[in-house]
Amino acid sequence: MSTDLSPAQIDYFMGQALYEAKKAGALGEVPIGAVVVIDGQIVSRGFNLRERMQDATQHAELMAISEANRFEHSWRLPEAQLFVTLEPCLMCAGLIQQTRITDVYYGAADPKGGAVDSLYNVLGDARLNHQVNVVAGVREAECSALLKAFFKAVRKKRKAEKRARKEAENKLVK
Amino acid sequence: MSTDLSPAQIDYFMGQALYEAKKAGALGEVPIGAVVVIDGQIVSRGFNLRERMQDATQHAELMAISEANRFEHSWRLPEAQLFVTLEPCLMCAGLIQQTRITDVYYGAADPKGGAVDSLYNVLGDARLNHQVNVVAGVREAECSALLKAFFKAVRKKRKAEKRARKEAENKLVK
Repeated sequence: MSTDLSPAQIDYFMGQALYEAKKAGALGEVPIGAVVVIDGQIVSRGFNLRERMQDATQHAELMAISEANRFEHSWRLPEAQLFVTLEPCLMCAGLIQQTRITDVYYGAADPKGGAVDSLYNVLGDARLNHQVNVVAGVREAECSALLKAFFKAVRKKRKAEKRARKEAENKLVK
Repeated sequence: MSTDLSPAQIDYFMGQALYEAKKAGALGEVPIGAVVVIDGQIVSRGFNLRERMQDATQHAELMAISEANRFEHSWRLPEAQLFVTLEPCLMCAGLIQQTRITDVYYGAADPKGGAVDSLYNVLGDARLNHQVNVVAGVREAECSALLKAFFKAVRKKRKAEKRARKEAENKLVK
């Protein structure tokens, strides 16, 4: 059964996930953020910290869900909604499915690694013991723009570094 | 490229994963254990602690991989082997794939939730950026026996509790 959230609530909660994503971006991480909502309240938050922590488990969703588990004193979250700015990967989709989260709202699709719609349909798999309602494309333009701006800046930085290296090499040759 | 481990090494490392699984069992958790091996040495260990921690992320593989990340100061583990007593689930298989682990050795298959051979073939998916070598059925009989004994004990305990409740109710009625 899907939980009834108003369009304003959905907009607000994804805005909070976007806020978390921006924290990741400010630290030089791919800007992805997530919040877990229970009874209309945010109970936990997470943002991508994979590079800073050098820990492959530190995805926004995993951090938020683990924190929600602690908050609820339960590894099951049957009344929860997850909001995340990017389509979850296999790891996070597998976790979401196992926690019995009711609804997932995500922003941008991930054609290369998305496990909800793009490459797999983990949350709708009838062979598993629980299925999750999915709403895709929530505040998609903002979620997507944040990621695009981040990768553009990364490419620009790499180009500048390459140019600086070449100039330094040329000086050495002269 | 698969890493060359001798049959004796494979046997030993799975024995260590079994040792971890028994720790979980001793705490009343489903007995699943894992170790991560780099350069022929165990660098990290994990066992299932989902119930005790009430945290859905606390699978043996996830704990072992996260610890290996910290040990290596890197979220990538391109030279690593993972040994685990049960076929990894979607969450753990997704994580293994993302860390670029070279080889996975597992014991018993998991027909209900296995994401390596049973329900999905995550580690061989050519659409993803890395594929993992898989060896299934390592010390399978022991891994499987450990799980079967655990679930048999759980059923026996539940039956005894049910009988005790009924007897108490009967006394109240009289």
